[in-house]
Amino acid sequence: MKSRAAVALEAGKPLELVEIDVEGPKKGEVLVKMAATSVCHTDAYTLSGADPEGLFPSVLGHEGAGVVQEVGEGVTSLKPGDHVIPLYTAECGKCKFCLSGKTNLCGSVRATQGKGVMPDGTSRFSLDGKMLHHYMGTSTFSEYTVLPEVSLAVVSKEAPMDKICLLGCGVTTGIGAVLNTAKVEPGATVAVFGLGAIGLAVIQGAVMAKAGRIIAIDVNEDKFELAKQFGATDFVNPKKYSDPIQQVIVDLTDGGVDYSFECIGNVNVMRSALECCHKGWGESIVIGVAGAGEEISTRPFQLVTGRVWKGSAFGGVKGRSELPGYVERYMNGEINIDDFITHDMPFEKINEAFDLLHEGKSIRTVLHY
Amino acid sequence: MKSRAAVALEAGKPLELVEIDVEGPKKGEVLVKMAATSVCHTDAYTLSGADPEGLFPSVLGHEGAGVVQEVGEGVTSLKPGDHVIPLYTAECGKCKFCLSGKTNLCGSVRATQGKGVMPDGTSRFSLDGKMLHHYMGTSTFSEYTVLPEVSLAVVSKEAPMDKICLLGCGVTTGIGAVLNTAKVEPGATVAVFGLGAIGLAVIQGAVMAKAGRIIAIDVNEDKFELAKQFGATDFVNPKKYSDPIQQVIVDLTDGGVDYSFECIGNVNVMRSALECCHKGWGESIVIGVAGAGEEISTRPFQLVTGRVWKGSAFGGVKGRSELPGYVERYMNGEINIDDFITHDMPFEKINEAFDLLHEGKSIRTVLHY
Repeated sequence: MKSRAAVALEAGKPLELVEIDVEGPKKGEVLVKMAATSVCHTDAYTLSGADPEGLFPSVLGHEGAGVVQEVGEGVTSLKPGDHVIPLYTAECGKCKFCLSGKTNLCGSVRATQGKGVMPDGTSRFSLDGKMLHHYMGTSTFSEYTVLPEVSLAVVSKEAPMDKICLLGCGVTTGIGAVLNTAKVEPGATVAVFGLGAIGLAVIQGAVMAKAGRIIAIDVNEDKFELAKQFGATDFVNPKKYSDPIQQVIVDLTDGGVDYSFECIGNVNVMRSALECCHKGWGESIVIGVAGAGEEISTRPFQLVTGRVWKGSAFGGVKGRSELPGYVERYMNGEINIDDFITHDMPFEKINEAFDLLHEGKSIRTVLHY
Repeated sequence: MKSRAAVALEAGKPLELVEIDVEGPKKGEVLVKMAATSVCHTDAYTLSGADPEGLFPSVLGHEGAGVVQEVGEGVTSLKPGDHVIPLYTAECGKCKFCLSGKTNLCGSVRATQGKGVMPDGTSRFSLDGKMLHHYMGTSTFSEYTVLPEVSLAVVSKEAPMDKICLLGCGVTTGIGAVLNTAKVEPGATVAVFGLGAIGLAVIQGAVMAKAGRIIAIDVNEDKFELAKQFGATDFVNPKKYSDPIQQVIVDLTDGGVDYSFECIGNVNVMRSALECCHKGWGESIVIGVAGAGEEISTRPFQLVTGRVWKGSAFGGVKGRSELPGYVERYMNGEINIDDFITHDMPFEKINEAFDLLHEGKSIRTVLHY
């Protein structure tokens, strides 16, 4: 089958809009026709070449929504016509991780996913006879894509796919980090470092958790307007202070915040986020993805005096079990996705979407196939 | 009043056995006659001069038990004759920390305690008319010592003071870190780094929590015998492996441990302790006190993939509320203190107790007044 796709031929170059060949689904696999996809910083990070695990040539993209076209042998939980959100964090329900009840980090397809291939070790994508790698088990930058059954959440057909595609990464990650990982309680004080899509979703999650005070922190004050709209109560630009930002936040909050979230991927900010937490109970959640080989540091005294350092991947959300509920909450008006979408474009303009992201001009651009 | 005491006149020198002057208790204070005290690594750390907050001359000592002699104005919760354990972590029940329900780090006397004085800013100790500093709010190396009311736990008069003195620090810290901070569940796999008094108490706590596997780790294999006696199931000497110890533990446990405890104060071991935790849920608890200015580091990926980094001070135990129960559990045979005591001596031999600690020949030496 032929498919429109934006292919990452090599690191540091724009995507190439081409027609690729897509093989049908094998055992345990599903062919999906994407309706919409968005561009996330992780795609940009891999495309830049900075990701040491980045593979080329490949079909990037991990935030999307589409419709099942065909299922491979043995697939029982989905059928053609089902609306789905691709999951870069699968949920098999059977592995040690899924059975633990303690994490969403399913191990079922992790090894092959990291190698850019399907669980059988091969790719379904090729261009002029040359194999293209899959990416994050999703590859939403191809109109037709093939995924493992365990990597798809079936969601309501009523939901607009050009909105709920954002639940495939950013929005869910931020809300989930608040509700699942931190378990923020009513009245809590929360600090959010970085006001991109993840940071805004954290603010939204904090509002859902009824946090008492939500401190939005960014060096780009243009972001404060939208942060306010999502429910942030305080706005801090670290550049305006000579003290380290952790000290500024501690002073603002009579001793520190109950919860902080790093939504940038900057290891120095991760330290600040930990150290602005209140002695005795403050918890800091790392969400941002740091550069290859970078390390976080602090004095162990910070932990011994009661602060907790955690991280969150896909917001601790088990995609197949929980994402349908997130879609319902969007439909009920409990989750706001629309305000994350600053731009809508046809799929062919995908490189413009990357430009807008790099320039800090977009929160999310939705690309329509 | 005159009192026998071992005074730290200056850093790096043995303690001086002298007769000091002790003033009676002022408002909110209590005069205690110590029956027994032990020597802990923290005393040795301060005496060495490595502790940047160490003050000299001072009366060290923080692990003891004694009898109330006299109470100052306004003291209502204790009376002469009460048996008490001094608390370096006070519990006032009224401050932001005590009222939070989330931490044992009471803030009531913290500021003055750190300055080596009583809450009114003055000292009760002097030698030849020269002021001596208090230490950790306890100063158990003086037969007569004065403490704030909030820094004393009243315990059963039936309990032998030359045993329960160890509940003033090491034994409680280790058991509490398991039960309060980590909340180890039945069947869990636990790694314990460092087999001094704290590490052995962690092993005991893990047995109390019904951990399934308890891995004892030390470079000194002489410690394994006692660790086994306390209930450790596996014994690892990192020096016997060429792989980093975290990799050795991950391999031993099919992916890592559920909980790890650092009981040394070595920042490199703290990293190993975190990184030997299982992806998705493993939690590492820092108990050891690192050297001044030292920092812990790791890749944030360790946290994003579900590991949690925490710390514990005095095992998260609220001294006045919970220590009487620890004493009861000792009396019922649920907590083993006796096996920590490798040496008993008269108080006058206190410098020998320090020597034994430095040489790794003792777990705890109890000094009798």
